[in-house]
Amino acid sequence: MSAEIEELLKPLRLAVAEQGDLVKKLKAEKAADIDVTRAVAELKTRKNALENKIEQLIPKENKIDRSKLEDLLKRRFFYDQSFAIYGGVNGLYDYGPMGCAMKANFLNEWRKFFILEEQMLEIDCSMLTPSPVLVASGHVARFSDFMVKDAKTGECFRADHLIEAHLEKMLQDKKLSSDKRGEIESYLRQVDNMSAKDMEEIISKYNMKSPVTNNDLTEPVAFNLMFATSIGPTGAIKGFLRPETAQGMFVNFKRLLEFNQGKLPFAAAQIGNSFRNEISPRSGLLRVREFTMSEIEHFVDPSDKSHPKFTSVQNVEIVLYSAENQVSGQPAQTVKIGDAVRNGLVNNETLGYFIARIFLFLTRCGIRKDKLRFRQHMSNEMAHYACDCWDAECHTTYGWVECVGCADRSCYDLTQHAQHSGVKLAAEKQLPQPRIIDVVEVVGDKSAIGKLFKQNAKLITGHLEKLNKDQVEELESRIQSAAEEEIELNIDGLKFNVKASLLKVKKYQKTVHVEEIVPSVIEPSFGIGRIMYAIWEHNFVVRDAQRTYLALPPVIAPYKCSVLPLSANDEFKPYIKKLSSLLTNAGISHKVDDSSGSIGRRYARTDEIAIPFAITIDFDSLKEPNTFTLRERDSMQQIRIDLDQVIQVVGDLADLRTTWSEVVSKYPLFENQTTTEKDE
Amino acid sequence: MSAEIEELLKPLRLAVAEQGDLVKKLKAEKAADIDVTRAVAELKTRKNALENKIEQLIPKENKIDRSKLEDLLKRRFFYDQSFAIYGGVNGLYDYGPMGCAMKANFLNEWRKFFILEEQMLEIDCSMLTPSPVLVASGHVARFSDFMVKDAKTGECFRADHLIEAHLEKMLQDKKLSSDKRGEIESYLRQVDNMSAKDMEEIISKYNMKSPVTNNDLTEPVAFNLMFATSIGPTGAIKGFLRPETAQGMFVNFKRLLEFNQGKLPFAAAQIGNSFRNEISPRSGLLRVREFTMSEIEHFVDPSDKSHPKFTSVQNVEIVLYSAENQVSGQPAQTVKIGDAVRNGLVNNETLGYFIARIFLFLTRCGIRKDKLRFRQHMSNEMAHYACDCWDAECHTTYGWVECVGCADRSCYDLTQHAQHSGVKLAAEKQLPQPRIIDVVEVVGDKSAIGKLFKQNAKLITGHLEKLNKDQVEELESRIQSAAEEEIELNIDGLKFNVKASLLKVKKYQKTVHVEEIVPSVIEPSFGIGRIMYAIWEHNFVVRDAQRTYLALPPVIAPYKCSVLPLSANDEFKPYIKKLSSLLTNAGISHKVDDSSGSIGRRYARTDEIAIPFAITIDFDSLKEPNTFTLRERDSMQQIRIDLDQVIQVVGDLADLRTTWSEVVSKYPLFENQTTTEKDE
Repeated sequence: MSAEIEELLKPLRLAVAEQGDLVKKLKAEKAADIDVTRAVAELKTRKNALENKIEQLIPKENKIDRSKLEDLLKRRFFYDQSFAIYGGVNGLYDYGPMGCAMKANFLNEWRKFFILEEQMLEIDCSMLTPSPVLVASGHVARFSDFMVKDAKTGECFRADHLIEAHLEKMLQDKKLSSDKRGEIESYLRQVDNMSAKDMEEIISKYNMKSPVTNNDLTEPVAFNLMFATSIGPTGAIKGFLRPETAQGMFVNFKRLLEFNQGKLPFAAAQIGNSFRNEISPRSGLLRVREFTMSEIEHFVDPSDKSHPKFTSVQNVEIVLYSAENQVSGQPAQTVKIGDAVRNGLVNNETLGYFIARIFLFLTRCGIRKDKLRFRQHMSNEMAHYACDCWDAECHTTYGWVECVGCADRSCYDLTQHAQHSGVKLAAEKQLPQPRIIDVVEVVGDKSAIGKLFKQNAKLITGHLEKLNKDQVEELESRIQSAAEEEIELNIDGLKFNVKASLLKVKKYQKTVHVEEIVPSVIEPSFGIGRIMYAIWEHNFVVRDAQRTYLALPPVIAPYKCSVLPLSANDEFKPYIKKLSSLLTNAGISHKVDDSSGSIGRRYARTDEIAIPFAITIDFDSLKEPNTFTLRERDSMQQIRIDLDQVIQVVGDLADLRTTWSEVVSKYPLFENQTTTEKDE
Repeated sequence: MSAEIEELLKPLRLAVAEQGDLVKKLKAEKAADIDVTRAVAELKTRKNALENKIEQLIPKENKIDRSKLEDLLKRRFFYDQSFAIYGGVNGLYDYGPMGCAMKANFLNEWRKFFILEEQMLEIDCSMLTPSPVLVASGHVARFSDFMVKDAKTGECFRADHLIEAHLEKMLQDKKLSSDKRGEIESYLRQVDNMSAKDMEEIISKYNMKSPVTNNDLTEPVAFNLMFATSIGPTGAIKGFLRPETAQGMFVNFKRLLEFNQGKLPFAAAQIGNSFRNEISPRSGLLRVREFTMSEIEHFVDPSDKSHPKFTSVQNVEIVLYSAENQVSGQPAQTVKIGDAVRNGLVNNETLGYFIARIFLFLTRCGIRKDKLRFRQHMSNEMAHYACDCWDAECHTTYGWVECVGCADRSCYDLTQHAQHSGVKLAAEKQLPQPRIIDVVEVVGDKSAIGKLFKQNAKLITGHLEKLNKDQVEELESRIQSAAEEEIELNIDGLKFNVKASLLKVKKYQKTVHVEEIVPSVIEPSFGIGRIMYAIWEHNFVVRDAQRTYLALPPVIAPYKCSVLPLSANDEFKPYIKKLSSLLTNAGISHKVDDSSGSIGRRYARTDEIAIPFAITIDFDSLKEPNTFTLRERDSMQQIRIDLDQVIQVVGDLADLRTTWSEVVSKYPLFENQTTTEKDE
């Protein structure tokens, strides 16, 4: 930011800082919840005002024209609405040949960069998920948005969006008194934090109606965002389409640990589709109902979150937007990840390692460094089980968009699934030296209990074995107290009276060599569609104020290379065939464009779909030694190169083994009317 | 087959041939449907008897022990039941690290072999599918199995399976009269072709009950196998999870044709998951509720199904089991695909080309040639719209299993979607020479109609423009008849009376350069899970009558290479790190096994998970020049090779650029107690 711009932002930064201090103070004083909530809402408003101002101050030449980009993406079928010939369905999109090839290249790179590099255990789990799994994870209870319906037509609206739109419309009334305006603005700030009751009150207060029919609205209700179905023909197995891929890795923890020969740390990974039944999807690919994610669950000993490869990334410089900076109105800062972990800003090495790796991967795939930041969750937005969480956010025309989450989720997920499934999900950790521990148990007289309680005997002895330390102590005191001759045991809702004399308290010492630990999990979670959209925005170029194209890095470009005969002359045909077959054998994806149209026009067309290199066959190519021009998309430079070398050079360029400037230093630049842009 | 075995099969072959002749005769005579159906059912029985006999005659040494294979696959987590800690769900499986890596390698090969080689247009469509799309495709009406329920508990059974099991149980009664036995056997043969009414009759006749509770059963009803859900919050958009990926390509036909600049032929391809709510899934991975498919839709001019690359495959020899061979009791025959197309056995070059390519791909990925056949659908099992259909079947312990379907579906799918969506799905074909055609139109007097009908004027003129030839003729005769002064037009349920004088019949000639055609589609459709299972069976080896392993081809093996230090000696560690990092940089997936256990035992463990090559670090490796042993899994041979070369050689072996025997001819075989199998 220039000094001039900083001057403009100063009062807004100050306003945030003041409110941030107030929030901290209230929290420190343990003020009433309602006061803290209000103060946090105000803080949020001030932060938004600051962000909005910053957005406004972005120089026009740095902004892209989203409608032009979308036109290109749909016209060249990178993606488009699904089932369009049937009218389409909101929030569902198909990737066409260009989007699909780019996505496949992107996921391939992801697999190499993360899975192969770290020898992660990739798995591929069912999307259909029975209800108990998602009860355990909390999704059945909590994965919802508030919705209101048109009382007559039943049309649904997301309550917060509807209220927001209504309030914003009210503010447009120029005759509004300043009191009224202040009141509305204050509500507007709180929309994100409203309960169903708050929403109902405000809808009634301002007499809000359906924006479509003007009919009355129903009360806001929570609408679960999972798609429900039933598995099997009876309808008895309720299930959902998974809302994330993570749960498949948690429920397979035991098998994965075993596969890893019982050792921690290890990481599982999964690439796959997930589903969210958004109430009213908007913002194109950013909020959709079906999407591809890739997630990593790195399981680690909670007492040792160091990472063996951390030193290899410690000098990577990353823009971090810490919670502290957010509440104090300060801008994000560029920090070496090594320093951030050392000074405690990032909780631990493993989390820091993944932040750095995410940064390196995204920028390798075309995300611009100056449009990427890692924003730390503030305590009020962090799930209660997470101990630190950073979102990789990419700046787009929609503002800052969360593209990758990176959270230390502690032991929450494994604990939940262990409780709900009754299966132990823990690892054994070798103790540095054997430890002697005191054991206290209550043991029942098996033969006597067997005779007295028959088929229930096992229930009773099993119950005794499962008691925890506190329960044993409590039972011990009851046994030893003279007051009870018979001990009443409550087991699974049944009551049993057991003579105290049949229960013995045993105390002894035991040497243990291992301890059981429930691992912590560090979870990087990638939204593939969002990242691809951000890459498109970051690489959208308007050339000569008119032609648009995508300057995608070769590594994710849909095709690596085009083959263009100068004209439809039959003599060119054998060379097209030859080049195409050599490129196929070398595994280089390519597109032959032998359509009519000037060469300049065909270059423009291949630029649009981001093909980084073009091999052109002209009349000189027909003469020995058969040479071709090789053109690079972004510089539009051309070199002359012969058949023996062109495949190798294109392959090296596509896999980033060499750069265009290295190539240009080896081969002479070529300037010829027939194959350059000018002839269009 | 040996002559001896053929002798045993002779009477069975004869029985099929006789019945085949009868069926042909009945069809030729246009006999009553019921007679044809009965004769076909009997033909089927005789074919089954023949196939069963052939299965029985397979020598024991050629059979694999399925339980041993499954033990290996689950123990080493190639795959296992989903959500097992919650009790699991039938028909849902997760791929573990080994299965997932193999699947990723397989799909990667598929993409290279089909999409890259043919420059197919890969797309990636939504799985959630609104109902109208699947109404058009016929799935809502016809994609079902018959089901009966326990009248009290509601438990569901697949009707055909239940009847089959009941009848088979009855046959076990040794006291059964031969009349009764004949009757039951005859019913058993017809189970696959029974209607709901047939099934109801037989259930009632033999008083069949629930096999679990012995309660009464309800009447058989058709149960649709698609998973239903609703999209969006209102519940108004009914949808299903797609039962196949094909529909996504048909509904995108227009965009794909446009992407291909309007030219035919072209192929679309899709890899993705599909879902079928099987009533009672069994047979492991062969019949599941969620599965990955890859499908190709090759769109072609129906009047020219030649294929430019057909000559490149014409000499491929393939086992074809034609419909004719099936009805005449003859075995499948090995035929050159070129001959099969020339003599009309395979309908056209494009279909033949894909059959050959499927054959080459499957055998490249580990399907054994002697356990692979292409079986032609007989007219009674072919969908009414298909003009020829061949299934690639792999022989497994479950018998012959359909793994890839390859059908010429003619123009059925595009026609259906055009009718249901109202959107034209056709290509334009340049005529060899322009053609002059007669045009008759009814044109309305726009200005007069505009004045008279105001906002409805456009409806009327639009209606006139859309009339087809017959409708124009009919209207012409009404206009010219003196009877009607005003013509009544019915448009979208509205009636308009238009003066005949305002409607002019125009007749003229037009020169057209193109004609519209609805392309035929050739559809190869791969079931990935089934193919993977067949590959496992075909490559399951028992070594020394005891150790089992998977001899997967390197190209799809989960890991390409292992790195094994001879012992836990610290001096080996830098070499492990070095090798691992060189392998990662070369993109070679590998597994370090530095656990304790003899080297022989660790070889066995890496063999189990199909790792084809092992680099072992021993004490000689520590000395200059650092050399390692490289072991091949199947031959257990070892060579000695130095650090500079080992990565290159393993990479070449993994990508099939060289073979083990070539490697052995260049490097000396190595025999040393310390790293060979004997030391276990």
